Amino acid sequence: MCAFGIINAAGIANIGRYVDVASAVITFGGSFFAVLASKSLSDYLAGLKSFLLVFKASSTDTKEMIQKIIDLSNIARKEGLLSLEEAASNLDDDFMKKGVLLIVDGTDPELVRGIMETELVSTEDRHKSKIAFWEDLGSMGPAWGMIGTLVGLVNMLYEMDNPSTIGPSMAVALITTLYGSLLANWICAPVAGKLKSNNASEIMLKEIMIEGLLSIQAGENPRVIEEKLKSFMAPGDRMLDDGGDENG
Amino acid sequence: MCAFGIINAAGIANIGRYVDVASAVITFGGSFFAVLASKSLSDYLAGLKSFLLVFKASSTDTKEMIQKIIDLSNIARKEGLLSLEEAASNLDDDFMKKGVLLIVDGTDPELVRGIMETELVSTEDRHKSKIAFWEDLGSMGPAWGMIGTLVGLVNMLYEMDNPSTIGPSMAVALITTLYGSLLANWICAPVAGKLKSNNASEIMLKEIMIEGLLSIQAGENPRVIEEKLKSFMAPGDRMLDDGGDENG
Amino acid sequence: MCAFGIINAAGIANIGRYVDVASAVITFGGSFFAVLASKSLSDYLAGLKSFLLVFKASSTDTKEMIQKIIDLSNIARKEGLLSLEEAASNLDDDFMKKGVLLIVDGTDPELVRGIMETELVSTEDRHKSKIAFWEDLGSMGPAWGMIGTLVGLVNMLYEMDNPSTIGPSMAVALITTLYGSLLANWICAPVAGKLKSNNASEIMLKEIMIEGLLSIQAGENPRVIEEKLKSFMAPGDRMLDDGGDENG
Amino acid sequence: MCAFGIINAAGIANIGRYVDVASAVITFGGSFFAVLASKSLSDYLAGLKSFLLVFKASSTDTKEMIQKIIDLSNIARKEGLLSLEEAASNLDDDFMKKGVLLIVDGTDPELVRGIMETELVSTEDRHKSKIAFWEDLGSMGPAWGMIGTLVGLVNMLYEMDNPSTIGPSMAVALITTLYGSLLANWICAPVAGKLKSNNASEIMLKEIMIEGLLSIQAGENPRVIEEKLKSFMAPGDRMLDDGGDENG
Amino acid sequence: MCAFGIINAAGIANIGRYVDVASAVITFGGSFFAVLASKSLSDYLAGLKSFLLVFKASSTDTKEMIQKIIDLSNIARKEGLLSLEEAASNLDDDFMKKGVLLIVDGTDPELVRGIMETELVSTEDRHKSKIAFWEDLGSMGPAWGMIGTLVGLVNMLYEMDNPSTIGPSMAVALITTLYGSLLANWICAPVAGKLKSNNASEIMLKEIMIEGLLSIQAGENPRVIEEKLKSFMAPGDRMLDDGGDENG
Repeated sequence: MCAFGIINAAGIANIGRYVDVASAVITFGGSFFAVLASKSLSDYLAGLKSFLLVFKASSTDTKEMIQKIIDLSNIARKEGLLSLEEAASNLDDDFMKKGVLLIVDGTDPELVRGIMETELVSTEDRHKSKIAFWEDLGSMGPAWGMIGTLVGLVNMLYEMDNPSTIGPSMAVALITTLYGSLLANWICAPVAGKLKSNNASEIMLKEIMIEGLLSIQAGENPRVIEEKLKSFMAPGDRMLDDGGDENG
Repeated sequence: MCAFGIINAAGIANIGRYVDVASAVITFGGSFFAVLASKSLSDYLAGLKSFLLVFKASSTDTKEMIQKIIDLSNIARKEGLLSLEEAASNLDDDFMKKGVLLIVDGTDPELVRGIMETELVSTEDRHKSKIAFWEDLGSMGPAWGMIGTLVGLVNMLYEMDNPSTIGPSMAVALITTLYGSLLANWICAPVAGKLKSNNASEIMLKEIMIEGLLSIQAGENPRVIEEKLKSFMAPGDRMLDDGGDENG
Repeated sequence: MCAFGIINAAGIANIGRYVDVASAVITFGGSFFAVLASKSLSDYLAGLKSFLLVFKASSTDTKEMIQKIIDLSNIARKEGLLSLEEAASNLDDDFMKKGVLLIVDGTDPELVRGIMETELVSTEDRHKSKIAFWEDLGSMGPAWGMIGTLVGLVNMLYEMDNPSTIGPSMAVALITTLYGSLLANWICAPVAGKLKSNNASEIMLKEIMIEGLLSIQAGENPRVIEEKLKSFMAPGDRMLDDGGDENG
Repeated sequence: MCAFGIINAAGIANIGRYVDVASAVITFGGSFFAVLASKSLSDYLAGLKSFLLVFKASSTDTKEMIQKIIDLSNIARKEGLLSLEEAASNLDDDFMKKGVLLIVDGTDPELVRGIMETELVSTEDRHKSKIAFWEDLGSMGPAWGMIGTLVGLVNMLYEMDNPSTIGPSMAVALITTLYGSLLANWICAPVAGKLKSNNASEIMLKEIMIEGLLSIQAGENPRVIEEKLKSFMAPGDRMLDDGGDENG
Repeated sequence: MCAFGIINAAGIANIGRYVDVASAVITFGGSFFAVLASKSLSDYLAGLKSFLLVFKASSTDTKEMIQKIIDLSNIARKEGLLSLEEAASNLDDDFMKKGVLLIVDGTDPELVRGIMETELVSTEDRHKSKIAFWEDLGSMGPAWGMIGTLVGLVNMLYEMDNPSTIGPSMAVALITTLYGSLLANWICAPVAGKLKSNNASEIMLKEIMIEGLLSIQAGENPRVIEEKLKSFMAPGDRMLDDGGDENG
């Protein structure tokens, strides 16, 4: 949409005015190089690859997960904690499965919480390092754009004898700033934002799982567990859940 | 008021100078698109819809709520905790009602606090995600305004042969920066500010409710509860309350 | 002083060059309106009124307060906690008086601390909301100054036919930026700074009171209380205090 | 060095071009006035005076202090806690001396920690208020520099009839921005940085003292105390210490 | 790469246009001097020297360390805690070795944790002070670049009689801004980023060691320890580990 707006404003015939290889090399080269130099290679590649996560639909359905935990708590109540082993094999989520197996093994509740929370924290750390990649790249874009513009301006200022070239020279100098802004605001800000928002919902889901698993281990009443876990949800979503799923 | 000032400064006849469709497409299109790309669709729509909350008068009257809690504590003292069930049906606030019902059910105080605080925290998280929508949009506005201005400037710099068009071309280039600033400071900053201020008073009210309900459950003296809850209020407001409501 | 410098730099005869009604309407109107839209009316008015607090001399004398607490602890030691009721009537500070009365009533120490700290926190919240008013206004000033300048520049760029009017038109356009900077740095920054500094000393005084009252309630030795409370003060101030007041 | 660079770049003969009284009055007057208005007079004077602390060599030798604490712990082990009273009279550091006397008085360990930590926190608060003075001044410098430049520009724009005066007028307008940047980056940033760095090492030293004194009071083994306190130091420094001082 | 881009954009023949000794003296001299003035000499030198750490390959292999801890826990289980003394002599890592020796000495677990965490915190403090060196230098670069540009501009504005020198003079003035941006974005940002990333992985490794050592001391089951420590790793890395190392 905004690409259309830019083209519209510039005129389709003038699109070539916005393409300049040397400017792209300074701005993108400088930005990516500076971020590469500031990370270990594996973090850098993980950061780059996380771009694809933006297009992956987030599969976290809070309501469904709460329902699963309540089902598990009903099984545990009726048939004992050991019967969860079988139920665990039907779970898609590795984090949830690990927690259930720890419970089945009879691990101490404090230790279950410790292991699960360490995993949650280190998952969040890995997410944050990917978010930081895009934020760092986004702050490097305008910086290297300005460096390119300064390089172009200095050159232009030495060649002011021919007034007719001043305009185009300055235009070329400004293109790096434009590239830098686009890198920051068209690519990096949305990607970092999306990764942050995905992280937030994944972490909340994992917190619900930890809370639910520990309640199951403590042998709490399924109704109380439901009440507890629904506090994580918006009141509106909760209502719907009551209507459809509670008899499950 | 400021719209009047802007018009005044520009002259009513010149208002057309400030309208440019391509500029609007770049600035608003770019900003809204970048925010859309950085959120899940449901968060994006919730963020947009939260604009309307700005006009909703905040219904949170701290004094009234404290009075209600004291009334409830008197009922609980005289007729027992179970008698609160009837009183709960007269409560407008869902959060308060839920708390009272938990107490009536004889839920463990630690669990009551846990459930209520989880609900409070996730309410605040939802508010914060709406506030973040407007803050993100507010930071995108000037960024895309500058991108639009750079696009316009590059174009202008290639067409400097005719001096009489330089002025108007540059004016058009600057309009995106103006649009971006207005988006950030006329729309986003006030909306984000209002949502933050509404959030703060709602959270404080909910904290008062939690504190009050736990005191009722613990069977504390209504006078002590009043003293406790009034500490949340400004001394001036407290005085008025003493005069009018205390005999209630 | 700086007003003198500005006048000096501009020449007294040219003072009229810096006065422009439309510019003032955009900058001040826009800033105040944007802050008004982002607060509830009562917060807005409280924020505006807090301007007067800047001129109120801070009445908090830490040394005097510590002396009063030590006097109270001596009374409590010799004549019992109940005898503090009479002493409380001579106290100017409402916060201190409330604390003493809670102690006299035989309130549980944990509850005394809870009530006093809730009051301290909500006092600080109220102060912070006033500080935020001036900080928000201070960030709106330059933003609306720039909006005004953009409005003026766009207008000017359409009227570049007559070179002799370009200078004055641009001067007028720049005046909004000047107004915005003055609003932020001449008014808002000092007011917010002063409110912050007043808040810090009031909060420290209230913390000393809480610490002192709880020590009195616990029946601690007046010498130990003195030692404890003097830790809040700078070593230099402490010395003077030892010389003059300790025999009181 | 950089002064030399500036002079070099400008040419020694042109040094007068960078001196302008009205500019200095706006920039320095405005900055110091705005900071004065935002602080109490005593804080302001303490802030100004803290400039001299930059030249005071920091006397904090961590290694020496750890050695002293180990010596004290040996004395306490052999001759009892009361024998520390004599040793205390040889200590230069008031904070350390106060701690030793509290121990000799038989004060409760919790109370010793409370008093020492309150003192540590309020020392840090006083340091921070001085650091804030220079940071505030550093942010005011460029702000008032820009105000001065705007004042100069507006004036210049009204007097563009004579092209030969435009250059020098604009040069004078820019001087306030230069003054503001120099105030911020030549004076304020280094002073604030130095005060911060001094604060950090003083606070670490005081933390070592508190840890050490409480260990002495608890009658811990001098070897364990040494191990504990050396954890605060860099491994390299520790080694040297082991070689030379441990037999002391 | 970006150096190539800059050269490309400017033309190889014009490289001399970007070299100016006075500009370098102002920008680099001012920046390094300002940072020197804000640190103690030893911190300054340590900061400078930390530049070399960027090229040192980080030797922290999480998987290998977890394997070592599990090996140690097996030894401790079979042959008792005292047998770890011999194993400790084969450890490369001083932090790990120190921890093992503390355990062998029979130190109280609380004290082991205390000493190890103090060491971890002060290691992180030392790292942070080096990171702060490069961040401070990075913020000083653009500031002194702007000071240099202002100095050059003021000079140029007094010498506008000869239009042919305006361009080159302004070019020279802009070079300091270019130098400052390069210092910040080519040198300081990557170095600070790399030091931060090294710090994060070193601290995580040390946390794993502390957790592991305390589990060994508590005599926990090697399988549980493995489960615990693997929670620190990404699920993908964990799998590989299971395949290859677990039988070790």
